[in-house]
Amino acid sequence: MTGFGPEDLTEDAFLGGRVRLLQPRKGYRAATDPVLLAAAVPASPGQSVLELGCGVGAALLCLGARVPDLALTGLELQAPYADLARRNAALNGIAARILEGDILDPPAELRGQGFDQVLMNPPFYDAAAATPAGDIGRDTAHREGEAGLAAFVDLGLRRLKPGGWLTIIHRADRLADILFALGHRAGAVAILPLVPRVGRDARRVVLRARKGARAPLRLAFPLVLHEGPVHLADVPDFTAPATAVLRDGAPLDF
Amino acid sequence: MTGFGPEDLTEDAFLGGRVRLLQPRKGYRAATDPVLLAAAVPASPGQSVLELGCGVGAALLCLGARVPDLALTGLELQAPYADLARRNAALNGIAARILEGDILDPPAELRGQGFDQVLMNPPFYDAAAATPAGDIGRDTAHREGEAGLAAFVDLGLRRLKPGGWLTIIHRADRLADILFALGHRAGAVAILPLVPRVGRDARRVVLRARKGARAPLRLAFPLVLHEGPVHLADVPDFTAPATAVLRDGAPLDF
Repeated sequence: MTGFGPEDLTEDAFLGGRVRLLQPRKGYRAATDPVLLAAAVPASPGQSVLELGCGVGAALLCLGARVPDLALTGLELQAPYADLARRNAALNGIAARILEGDILDPPAELRGQGFDQVLMNPPFYDAAAATPAGDIGRDTAHREGEAGLAAFVDLGLRRLKPGGWLTIIHRADRLADILFALGHRAGAVAILPLVPRVGRDARRVVLRARKGARAPLRLAFPLVLHEGPVHLADVPDFTAPATAVLRDGAPLDF
Repeated sequence: MTGFGPEDLTEDAFLGGRVRLLQPRKGYRAATDPVLLAAAVPASPGQSVLELGCGVGAALLCLGARVPDLALTGLELQAPYADLARRNAALNGIAARILEGDILDPPAELRGQGFDQVLMNPPFYDAAAATPAGDIGRDTAHREGEAGLAAFVDLGLRRLKPGGWLTIIHRADRLADILFALGHRAGAVAILPLVPRVGRDARRVVLRARKGARAPLRLAFPLVLHEGPVHLADVPDFTAPATAVLRDGAPLDF
């Protein structure tokens, strides 16, 4: 996979314009998942943060825009996406160290370093995002490859300081797999189901867990993303709580 | 623990009076949990059903009142509760075989028998139900003893036919433990969070899983039990969906 030329890119606004991101026109494109993920990270100013699989930096930079003075690190497998993440950090005036490397063979810079916060939006196949015309970058970002969910969670736990927080967004149907991967190495698990509309099954979960903690699991009331029973084309219909997070940059409290 | 005398018992109505249960005045008293559990069991007429830890038979008899022609079996550790379950079955004209025995050393009658449905409301400590004055029966029913959650789930899976369904109600903070206990021996997991009111954390989960199945996990939209933001003393405030299940005997679809 080669780099992106100017004609391959779009510049898109996130958090009501507080974050602007260059994204491949045809590749993996950040939507609401990384924004929701960033909003759920319980980071305080001064903390160190690692994102595993940072793509063009959407989650990392949304987090950096909300919480000042973070030491941000992103790990990305695909060089053209890592390049874009670096450009996007500069574009937004947010310092971020973007490392290129594989979850299964992390770069030397990460070894021995402990982080206060680890966040991740591990790749998965999303039927809604799949199109007949394949794209290598998007397919890599959307398909669970050799570095599967368990490998992401495992590396995340290993790179956390004791008492540090892991935050993940993933398909709701992988909830058990996330919990299996965490095992008993983390506690204080809090699960936020994300539902498209009232009454529907969760499509995503945001899950937070604290390394070495023993506090009991919490299953929070779902965040409902959209108003009304059906989607009306071209009518923005995010609920007020979703709008607060996606447009106004509010933290996702749960 | 000795048996209950008439003065020790109350007779209480469930499912709008369709089920009447003798219960110890001071011991473990069935409330909404066994009724919700029974409503969630996807049983069809003619099937065989086993409840592990059946107490006075609340869940088993609510299920028997909703679905006709079930072959009902209950296993109960405490003899006085097993006796009451037998009396309650007779009182409601529902045939049920009540076995006395321990989850950790199941009676010979259960060995080698496979069931279409297994349901359980395993004992747990519920701070809301605890009082300073202890009661052995209630404490046994409310405290996780030697036969813990994992032992209940394990026996349940072993007593299911291939393709049979396990249905459990438990504290929401034990969700990971339920999933750990199921492991990969069951699939098609469906999780229904039960929340006291809109916006609150789940206090209970109802979980269904199918032995040997591979279908993905589902996390359903919560069942909200009560209307409004706070409880008003002595004012019944169940929501319409909760009332349909608890009073009208509707199945709990999820």
